[in-house]
Amino acid sequence: MQQYALLDKINSPQDVKRLDARQLPVLAGEIRHKLITTVSRTGGHLASNLGVVELTIALHRVFSCPKDRIVFDVGHQCYTHKLLTGRRERFSTLRQSGGLSGFPKRGESEYDAFIAGHSSTSISAAIGLARAKRLRGEEGKAIAVIGDGAFAGVAFEALSNVDETLSNLVVILNDNEMSISKNVSAFAHHLAKIRNTKGYFELKSGVERTLGAIPLVGRGMVGGLSAIKGAAKNMLYNSNLFEDMGFTYLGPVEGHNLPQLCAVFERARQMDEPVLIHVHTQKGKGYKQAEENPGAFHGVSKFDPRKEQQNDMPADSFSEQMGLHLTELGERDSRIVAITAAMKYATGLHHFSTRFRDEGRFYDVGIAESHAVVFGAALGVGGMLPFFAVYSSFLQRAYDQLLHDCCLERVHLVLGVDRAGLVGEDGETHQGLFDVPFLCSLPSCAIYSPATYDGLRRCISRALYEEEGLCAVRYPRGRQTLVLPDNAKDCGDYYEIPPKGEEQGLLITYGRVAANALGALGIAGRAYRVLLLEKIWPLPREVLDSARAAGKIVMIEESAASGSLGEHLLAALAKTGWKGDFCHRAIENPVVAQGTVEQCMQAVGLDGETLAKIL
Amino acid sequence: MQQYALLDKINSPQDVKRLDARQLPVLAGEIRHKLITTVSRTGGHLASNLGVVELTIALHRVFSCPKDRIVFDVGHQCYTHKLLTGRRERFSTLRQSGGLSGFPKRGESEYDAFIAGHSSTSISAAIGLARAKRLRGEEGKAIAVIGDGAFAGVAFEALSNVDETLSNLVVILNDNEMSISKNVSAFAHHLAKIRNTKGYFELKSGVERTLGAIPLVGRGMVGGLSAIKGAAKNMLYNSNLFEDMGFTYLGPVEGHNLPQLCAVFERARQMDEPVLIHVHTQKGKGYKQAEENPGAFHGVSKFDPRKEQQNDMPADSFSEQMGLHLTELGERDSRIVAITAAMKYATGLHHFSTRFRDEGRFYDVGIAESHAVVFGAALGVGGMLPFFAVYSSFLQRAYDQLLHDCCLERVHLVLGVDRAGLVGEDGETHQGLFDVPFLCSLPSCAIYSPATYDGLRRCISRALYEEEGLCAVRYPRGRQTLVLPDNAKDCGDYYEIPPKGEEQGLLITYGRVAANALGALGIAGRAYRVLLLEKIWPLPREVLDSARAAGKIVMIEESAASGSLGEHLLAALAKTGWKGDFCHRAIENPVVAQGTVEQCMQAVGLDGETLAKIL
Repeated sequence: MQQYALLDKINSPQDVKRLDARQLPVLAGEIRHKLITTVSRTGGHLASNLGVVELTIALHRVFSCPKDRIVFDVGHQCYTHKLLTGRRERFSTLRQSGGLSGFPKRGESEYDAFIAGHSSTSISAAIGLARAKRLRGEEGKAIAVIGDGAFAGVAFEALSNVDETLSNLVVILNDNEMSISKNVSAFAHHLAKIRNTKGYFELKSGVERTLGAIPLVGRGMVGGLSAIKGAAKNMLYNSNLFEDMGFTYLGPVEGHNLPQLCAVFERARQMDEPVLIHVHTQKGKGYKQAEENPGAFHGVSKFDPRKEQQNDMPADSFSEQMGLHLTELGERDSRIVAITAAMKYATGLHHFSTRFRDEGRFYDVGIAESHAVVFGAALGVGGMLPFFAVYSSFLQRAYDQLLHDCCLERVHLVLGVDRAGLVGEDGETHQGLFDVPFLCSLPSCAIYSPATYDGLRRCISRALYEEEGLCAVRYPRGRQTLVLPDNAKDCGDYYEIPPKGEEQGLLITYGRVAANALGALGIAGRAYRVLLLEKIWPLPREVLDSARAAGKIVMIEESAASGSLGEHLLAALAKTGWKGDFCHRAIENPVVAQGTVEQCMQAVGLDGETLAKIL
Repeated sequence: MQQYALLDKINSPQDVKRLDARQLPVLAGEIRHKLITTVSRTGGHLASNLGVVELTIALHRVFSCPKDRIVFDVGHQCYTHKLLTGRRERFSTLRQSGGLSGFPKRGESEYDAFIAGHSSTSISAAIGLARAKRLRGEEGKAIAVIGDGAFAGVAFEALSNVDETLSNLVVILNDNEMSISKNVSAFAHHLAKIRNTKGYFELKSGVERTLGAIPLVGRGMVGGLSAIKGAAKNMLYNSNLFEDMGFTYLGPVEGHNLPQLCAVFERARQMDEPVLIHVHTQKGKGYKQAEENPGAFHGVSKFDPRKEQQNDMPADSFSEQMGLHLTELGERDSRIVAITAAMKYATGLHHFSTRFRDEGRFYDVGIAESHAVVFGAALGVGGMLPFFAVYSSFLQRAYDQLLHDCCLERVHLVLGVDRAGLVGEDGETHQGLFDVPFLCSLPSCAIYSPATYDGLRRCISRALYEEEGLCAVRYPRGRQTLVLPDNAKDCGDYYEIPPKGEEQGLLITYGRVAANALGALGIAGRAYRVLLLEKIWPLPREVLDSARAAGKIVMIEESAASGSLGEHLLAALAKTGWKGDFCHRAIENPVVAQGTVEQCMQAVGLDGETLAKIL
């Protein structure tokens, strides 16, 4: 195992404070090595973590956690923080079952101030922690560390709530000039402008002194310089939106310069007012491949750090298949437009983007799922065929927009709900276990949940051309695992697989877990008629009819149990007076810890072996 | 019936264009009279509509709907628009069953471009409509009309997506210096600053010319005026955040000056770039009482326009009772803090605010439900006892934050879910019919749903002191209607009411509709044992036990059916092998049109007469 001269002695932030300032860059180098070697084995977020090594060292050098509370936004840049706060020795367990989370987790350490996993919440959380500190008379700062790409809706809501009483609030804007995909938003332009105003601070004080030196010439030139002076001064003082929003702005700071970072943080620590520190970092810093292609190294699987090429997106995945099929459809129908919320590559929409961006038919709206849904709905109202590809857990952000802006007036918008079901190593915050319950609760939303690539293509086409209103096509992370039996009969909305022997009951399932369900039948050697649904909601009439005719139903689904399809099916059956046996396996506790997808399946009892026992 | 010389001849926007410019102020006066007399009879949004009379006239004078598409944000300022677009004669039916909606509705008129009811979506919608127009080669502008108070999260997400290709986008910022409650946010300060920079445009061009006239003095004073000139010019050009975000900014415009409004709109119509027009209006304009107290006249019930005082908040309401009780609890426990999202009066939190604002224990975060939940969760993590009072339909905005920021780590946050159930005249967009389904879908959320004021007080105390994690106390709009029978036995989580005669089944119900359910028993003359739940989720163990022992269960609830408590109860019973009769009455189609609450109850079959038929 690799030995590190400095890092191996860091057991708490106190140890960072004890180092000589000249040792800090050495520590940074060791941390980078540790990050690259570990993530190459465990997978995880690499580029974002490499970008904040110095920033995090400087934070722990200057501030004193847990008296000071650091809230990492999204959380996928907290690895250095974990290394410096007593979790160094467990770091090799990152993202593995029973190991360290890839995100901050209060239950894991007193140094983790607030949960993260979904973006843009850190400022809201820091404001709450800051206010609570004040009310309880506690010392210390509440510090939000937030990337430029995460400046989405909630973050702006939070900024609107900053006032001078939040004198223990520090916001660190980690400006790496990109969201998860490259962000070319209005906000990004604003940041670029601030950055490009070289020596902003020096210039500002210079201008101030200069204006003071201009003699007052009275009512001469167009109203006079005296008026201009006031206006110009006023405007100079308010020339970026953070100052407009009540912060004292410090920056931009070079984010890999430890002395500069420490100096600015120290200044902020001593100030008694809300401070925003604008730090300019490079995503992937210190690992050439990640610097050159930070998008590809945002979230990575295991890789060989010595090799040249990395590709985290196997062509053999539901996401890629979606992207390819939508692009094909887009060739034939110019009404099709596609939207992503900062997930162009991960959702497979890069194919569509490459082909149709120039035609203005592809939109990366940044991390802004709520906007994406309203925007998509309006494209639908305007006569287009909009498709929004989004992770299941991030779609939770748009529940109200789905309901209010799409469903109430039955606007046609198609959702590609990616990472539906268990997601594995990203853990609790990323599990896609709620989309079936929350989509079924909407006034009208059709849901498809194919288990095969063929099914995916068919469902996307049906969603676009056979459905009206909101329609979701949901599919899991990764590749197709189901091999459809030869005797599966295609019934349109579902496949019917006859029992092997005398029928013992009806098994209803859908999506990826169908492979486990069919496997369980084999293991148990039981003879169920199987309905493998592709359209799951509203429940197809024939499925209801088959269910009514059955004396025993086993329903297996990879979803949170509360509000699941099984509950809806049971309610529909109860209306008909059905009195059969209903055995339902879904995920009773959807707070599912990290692990491989297979481990997660076992943990929730949806693996073939466990399912075999109930058949 | 009142005759109007001009308004009576306006049957479409074309008629507005035909008027002589000097007639427009007369038209505005007639419209104001019409608004006040109508809303005094129908109830509705008064102050916001009085504020935009001239703005709306000017819009229809300059732009040509429906070629141009106007999206009204929130929608509670669309009355003048309705009067000018062919709905004048039906205007007296406003907010009544079968009548005109108080909000824009595509199904109602081709002039209504997009649904509204929840705030901050108009820019997203206008961007979508604008992009669709471009893609389809259509003429015309997409125009968002949005109040300063509605500049919440989604609106900022939308602003981040504005670029120069949106040359057919116009955003009209209706700056009335307030949200629904007075908004003292950072954003409001920024707008005030822009307004107070008197003659902003004139000054700006003046400064520009003046700077051009300053001789270049070389490297004299601190870097030289030439550098300063460049920097100053750059900053002058970018001195408000709308320009930073890619708009051409026009304003501020005096919002009751018709010639000025028409001139600026005409300029925007001719421009080929994204334009933001900052219009300064007065909420309640033209009706003295509403001008002086726009908050009280935001949403009003019927009133007598000749009388002095209006108070839309009867002390006899669940909201008021909540506010009074929480204030009492706050006296005894300094950890209790309260949050509202721009609904201080309507939620009853004004009592708490009056008492505890100075102690920093009350927060009005503006229209920002997502932020409010994260902020509240962080207050909980920080050791406080946070209470967030919010309308059921607006809480939909925070689904992800409830799940991710509260439930995953079981943070203690108490929600006061107001307007739970049918809300009446505000119609589809405001019905509180989804909170039970979406709260039950969360990994862990306790839900209370009292039917009486006594119950409300008890539930709030239990939520604060007996529960951990997220806990919702939901209650309806308006007053207590249930009279608890004398023989109701208090069982802690529920009341049990014995049957009048030999027991014919078990009736389970909760919340306001319990009054109708009990009434139905009387009408039908049936003898059911009744469980009136107060804690509804997780289903109390004794309730489950009673249900298991029953041969027949009738469950009645005022909630969307899909994902309702009844479905969860049935699923829990199925697990035990229960085979009784289950009769469930909830709201199968939760898109419930406006009417009185009683009319809505009838429309969905939850009135006593209809319920009696199923018993």
